[in-house]
Amino acid sequence: MHHKPSLMTVAVFATALTLVHSNETKCDQTIAPVDSVSSQTQECLDCHATVTPGIVQDWETSRHSWVTVGAALAKPVIQRRVSAENPAADLLQHVVGCYECHSQNTDQHKDSFDHFGYRINVIVTPHDCATCHPVEVSQYEGSKKANAYGNLMENPVYHELLSTVNGMKSIEGDKIVSQEPGAVNLNLSCLGCHGSFVQVAGVDTVHSPVGDVVVPRLTNWPNQGVGRINPDGTKGSCTACHTRHSFSLEIARKPYTCAQCHLEPDVPAWEVYRESKHGNIFLSKGEGWDMEDVPWVAGKDFQAPTCATCHNSTLVSSDGTVIAERNHDFGSRLWLRLFGLIYSHPQPKSGNTTVIRNKDGLPLPTTFTGEVAADFLIGSSEQATRLASMEQMCKSCHSTPWVEGHFAHLDTVVHETDRMTKSATQLVVKAWQDSIEDKSNPFDEEIEKMWVEQWLFYANTMRYSAAMTGAPDYEAFKDGWWDMTKNLVQMKDMIDLKSALKKGGNR
Amino acid sequence: MHHKPSLMTVAVFATALTLVHSNETKCDQTIAPVDSVSSQTQECLDCHATVTPGIVQDWETSRHSWVTVGAALAKPVIQRRVSAENPAADLLQHVVGCYECHSQNTDQHKDSFDHFGYRINVIVTPHDCATCHPVEVSQYEGSKKANAYGNLMENPVYHELLSTVNGMKSIEGDKIVSQEPGAVNLNLSCLGCHGSFVQVAGVDTVHSPVGDVVVPRLTNWPNQGVGRINPDGTKGSCTACHTRHSFSLEIARKPYTCAQCHLEPDVPAWEVYRESKHGNIFLSKGEGWDMEDVPWVAGKDFQAPTCATCHNSTLVSSDGTVIAERNHDFGSRLWLRLFGLIYSHPQPKSGNTTVIRNKDGLPLPTTFTGEVAADFLIGSSEQATRLASMEQMCKSCHSTPWVEGHFAHLDTVVHETDRMTKSATQLVVKAWQDSIEDKSNPFDEEIEKMWVEQWLFYANTMRYSAAMTGAPDYEAFKDGWWDMTKNLVQMKDMIDLKSALKKGGNR
Amino acid sequence: MHHKPSLMTVAVFATALTLVHSNETKCDQTIAPVDSVSSQTQECLDCHATVTPGIVQDWETSRHSWVTVGAALAKPVIQRRVSAENPAADLLQHVVGCYECHSQNTDQHKDSFDHFGYRINVIVTPHDCATCHPVEVSQYEGSKKANAYGNLMENPVYHELLSTVNGMKSIEGDKIVSQEPGAVNLNLSCLGCHGSFVQVAGVDTVHSPVGDVVVPRLTNWPNQGVGRINPDGTKGSCTACHTRHSFSLEIARKPYTCAQCHLEPDVPAWEVYRESKHGNIFLSKGEGWDMEDVPWVAGKDFQAPTCATCHNSTLVSSDGTVIAERNHDFGSRLWLRLFGLIYSHPQPKSGNTTVIRNKDGLPLPTTFTGEVAADFLIGSSEQATRLASMEQMCKSCHSTPWVEGHFAHLDTVVHETDRMTKSATQLVVKAWQDSIEDKSNPFDEEIEKMWVEQWLFYANTMRYSAAMTGAPDYEAFKDGWWDMTKNLVQMKDMIDLKSALKKGGNR
Repeated sequence: MHHKPSLMTVAVFATALTLVHSNETKCDQTIAPVDSVSSQTQECLDCHATVTPGIVQDWETSRHSWVTVGAALAKPVIQRRVSAENPAADLLQHVVGCYECHSQNTDQHKDSFDHFGYRINVIVTPHDCATCHPVEVSQYEGSKKANAYGNLMENPVYHELLSTVNGMKSIEGDKIVSQEPGAVNLNLSCLGCHGSFVQVAGVDTVHSPVGDVVVPRLTNWPNQGVGRINPDGTKGSCTACHTRHSFSLEIARKPYTCAQCHLEPDVPAWEVYRESKHGNIFLSKGEGWDMEDVPWVAGKDFQAPTCATCHNSTLVSSDGTVIAERNHDFGSRLWLRLFGLIYSHPQPKSGNTTVIRNKDGLPLPTTFTGEVAADFLIGSSEQATRLASMEQMCKSCHSTPWVEGHFAHLDTVVHETDRMTKSATQLVVKAWQDSIEDKSNPFDEEIEKMWVEQWLFYANTMRYSAAMTGAPDYEAFKDGWWDMTKNLVQMKDMIDLKSALKKGGNR
Repeated sequence: MHHKPSLMTVAVFATALTLVHSNETKCDQTIAPVDSVSSQTQECLDCHATVTPGIVQDWETSRHSWVTVGAALAKPVIQRRVSAENPAADLLQHVVGCYECHSQNTDQHKDSFDHFGYRINVIVTPHDCATCHPVEVSQYEGSKKANAYGNLMENPVYHELLSTVNGMKSIEGDKIVSQEPGAVNLNLSCLGCHGSFVQVAGVDTVHSPVGDVVVPRLTNWPNQGVGRINPDGTKGSCTACHTRHSFSLEIARKPYTCAQCHLEPDVPAWEVYRESKHGNIFLSKGEGWDMEDVPWVAGKDFQAPTCATCHNSTLVSSDGTVIAERNHDFGSRLWLRLFGLIYSHPQPKSGNTTVIRNKDGLPLPTTFTGEVAADFLIGSSEQATRLASMEQMCKSCHSTPWVEGHFAHLDTVVHETDRMTKSATQLVVKAWQDSIEDKSNPFDEEIEKMWVEQWLFYANTMRYSAAMTGAPDYEAFKDGWWDMTKNLVQMKDMIDLKSALKKGGNR
Repeated sequence: MHHKPSLMTVAVFATALTLVHSNETKCDQTIAPVDSVSSQTQECLDCHATVTPGIVQDWETSRHSWVTVGAALAKPVIQRRVSAENPAADLLQHVVGCYECHSQNTDQHKDSFDHFGYRINVIVTPHDCATCHPVEVSQYEGSKKANAYGNLMENPVYHELLSTVNGMKSIEGDKIVSQEPGAVNLNLSCLGCHGSFVQVAGVDTVHSPVGDVVVPRLTNWPNQGVGRINPDGTKGSCTACHTRHSFSLEIARKPYTCAQCHLEPDVPAWEVYRESKHGNIFLSKGEGWDMEDVPWVAGKDFQAPTCATCHNSTLVSSDGTVIAERNHDFGSRLWLRLFGLIYSHPQPKSGNTTVIRNKDGLPLPTTFTGEVAADFLIGSSEQATRLASMEQMCKSCHSTPWVEGHFAHLDTVVHETDRMTKSATQLVVKAWQDSIEDKSNPFDEEIEKMWVEQWLFYANTMRYSAAMTGAPDYEAFKDGWWDMTKNLVQMKDMIDLKSALKKGGNR
């Protein structure tokens, strides 16, 4: 009888053996000297290793914990993870610890507080991260993501949708009466992704093992949405993708990060990717890939793209040719906005989409008949430039006819789903015209809701599927043609039934 | 041209190289001596290595196959995987093989049979596992899981739901006529998770390569549901989570085990976890974690919790402080029962929930108006104690205001989903009062089914989402507010249509 | 303060260390000699390493890139990945590179073109792969997969379903008017899995870094569907599962490959597997398994089956006994066709299912009342043989009573879901008889669509679930009994509402 240990135990053991060597030889120029932890951070660690050990140990797995800012800057530009040219001198010799991040710009932080002799901010904001990563933060500031709170909350049309959907309903007589949704409701649903409005609303006393600690009381907290309004007035939450406190590139580049928000039924990017050929390769082989390399070498570090590959990472060929430069404005490589409002349209010029007005005066990028608000959207020349850049990435692995065929397919699906949206729009307009449903709130009745599902769920799903080299089920049966077609038939039947009911009621 | 082998092949090769060393040095005190397989088990193996080689090789990957009970007991208490103080002397020197498990308590096993000179039980039950793991089995016996069969089948309300849903339907005239569901139907659906009733119903002769073998014929078999009624009268199936025959802690601690049952649309724990920040970290980095360590060290062994972390494992800090003690009553750390029946409520006092009676005399933890059956549920003091314990776990990584904010959010979602359930309940009651649908079976008509979806699908989904630090899509569009609101509107419209139809029919 | 590098970095480092050794010692007899890349392929690589570096590097990870055909043939038969007995002599000494695949049978390839002095085919077809893998291609040719294009497009019933679902709809007056779906529409949806019709429709000039290149213009391209009609007249796309250009067995054997197409709501094989015990084990432990071994050793290489294990791989016991022989006709091990058309039925005799006629003369394997088209389906003796073979695989790990119990359960679910399909059929027939809906197109009205969902979505889901040792949620609440029952009730209510509306309209 042969008794063998489990493979996993062996692997752990093998790792332990090599750990000794690797500590000495890995990334030689970036290993932090022994005294590279600042005295302030060391003081934080002395307590927090006991009070919140998980955070400390997570940070210890991070590059922040063992690379000094100076060492990070010593790398060739293409390999750098920092974009600051001249960070403050006292940062250069230190690794990036608790104090280095939580003590930036305290005068602008309404959430700063005295903490055992130090001035500490609860929230590290993009403005703080910009100390070392200014280019990334600057790109991000112009993005739709950074503006995601206002784009939703300050657009009266979207706000009416949100408030109709999320409002608490009571039954009064034979009516459904809806209230405005509360702050917590929104923080966990829409603003869970879009970001919440975090303010300081007083202080609280926390009883901790090391004594009472007085800390700011924050509204709408916790929240890690991409467009969070922070107590220093900035927008965004880097930890939405760069997960605390490992700030791991591997996590940010794996699709599970994007899958925190980009999900069916409205933006099924993750589900579509998972079923695609690219997703199949990632799921089958991705554990062996190098998800930390900078720059990221197509073909060598990985053999199929993840979300980050096409949408924001620095990509190079194995010969060092730059295929795409890193960009934290995630719309910057996109020519089309697949997400229908209510039709697909060219990407907006500004990340702040509340400025958009269509020909009917509504804050929407298209009219109900499909005309785009061209003044606020990028033009065909810019579209062509962006498409060509995206195609360049595809061509790392695919032939030109393959790539052009793929994007021609996408164009057709965009056209057909827009056309199917238009048919649904014609039906809801008919329901309004015949007083079967009431247009005053276009989102609160049954036929109206079916109309929303046509463009928000089904048309979007099919376009995402077409964009990602195959997930045929999402074109056919899974929120695809089956649902688009069935939905139209059901809208029509419901119009007929309600119409008959209305006539009956009038007798 | 450089030809490199695939990374995987290399990894396998590297493992092979280190296997020699690791056999000698790993877990020194636990390596079984050469003669540690009992003579009885060796006899089993001699045949079954040919007859069912997969089982044998799976077992060979298990700790059971290479650690003697004596060696397991020699460990410090906190590191022990066994809780018996004085197991039988003949077990101590042996590893835990076929015979050690399948020959326990044969006199109580109606499924025991003579097998080549040995008395063997087909099913190893919790009572048998208690030989070495008595504390775990004792905890489990008091849980809702152990009682899952009776809690479903012997509660007349739940049984009516089950039988209405699963009964085979025929069309007779213009009526849908439903039968009682059969045993197989239930074994594969509800009882697939809850556990089936396994009895001995005769014997069968199996023609095997080593001759005919006469074995007990079991009813409702195979089944691995958590509350299975076994042929020795005990309740439960340890293999529901401790998958045969590796009994791997890694498997039990990974969320895929819980995902066998805790799934959308009614209990979407897995889907919510997968989209949460914790799930993202696990999916991105979990392959490198130590999922076998006992005790499990938060921060060091893993950097984000899985289901087992919060709900049952022994958790310690890296300095050895015990954060939570192992408990196999999975409700024991919970203060609230998110699962609405029909409203969320405090955890029941007993794992046997058939004893509960609400103020209307129904075997439900709440009334239709939302009043809880307080006598049968834990009180606010016990709730506070449990919540504080859970918060202690969160605080390993999160600050106190973060943790308190999180649970305050959950409370709000519980309140709002209960309120939305109440609105749906008001509508179905109206349908009953107006004789639009018939209350005699509250689950078999269309508006009734929409009402069930409100509390069983949508309210549950939103509460699970709020409990797990973010899966905003499940609050908003995916069985969340969108569906809750749409469902109410559709209930209302269907009441109006049916009401009009009824009046029309009366003319 | 201890600063440790991330585990991943260490692992990569460890791999790098061992790479030197492994190049020399791994798979000694198969390492390609230095001059094993043909001069033609070397010429391809010289350019394409720059033009499409990703393809080249993906190929470098493939066995094709480092094993010569001669070395592949030198292996014992059971270990061979090639089935050719006497491939052309000039192949033997070379690894399988660009030219070896893309230059086969150019005279039959309408997509061949002159490319820098060589005659190159754009598409490598099954006929080309048959140069080295003739047995696999021959098996595949007889399969339903190879015939998937014609089986869908040339069956008038299925084509009417497809065209009703996928046709673009416009609203004209108060009618929904449907067009025939276009080529792109079908290529991305149904034919994304079934395969498209790829023809040469001219030439295009591609502007590349190395000058203009004139290439064939292909219709319906790209496409990787399993039944693709290729420009050489052959059927199929090996890259549907053997993903370019790594042709990795690991990918083909992992369930993510099958999950490209076998998805809910119509064929939820992947979702069911994922929630099953087998799926749990694979997801928890599969990263440590040997997914490349040939033959594949049950229990040793893996401890739970993936799709490929049961449906097509060569399986052996650890003692070398062959449990199942490789077969690329994926229906060949199956006795039942779970996929209802409209009822479950014995597997068809021929992979070309357009020849089938039921008693009513329709090209369907069953009548609307459930009678099977026996002449075109395998008989009970062949069914018994296949079932016994499948059971043999299960018995590698499971006892005979367990296995027989499992398949008896499946039989019951097949029976019950067929019965529930029949009830839905009775309702739609009633709607037709009462002129509530119009049978002339049986797929385009609301009640008809509900009827389709009964057999295409819910009955299929429950049968897949029953076939795969447990995914109880898919029997109960997730497209299972809950949906089957609710659907019947909704069909009935819609018949009543439409009937009342019709009477009202006639007044």
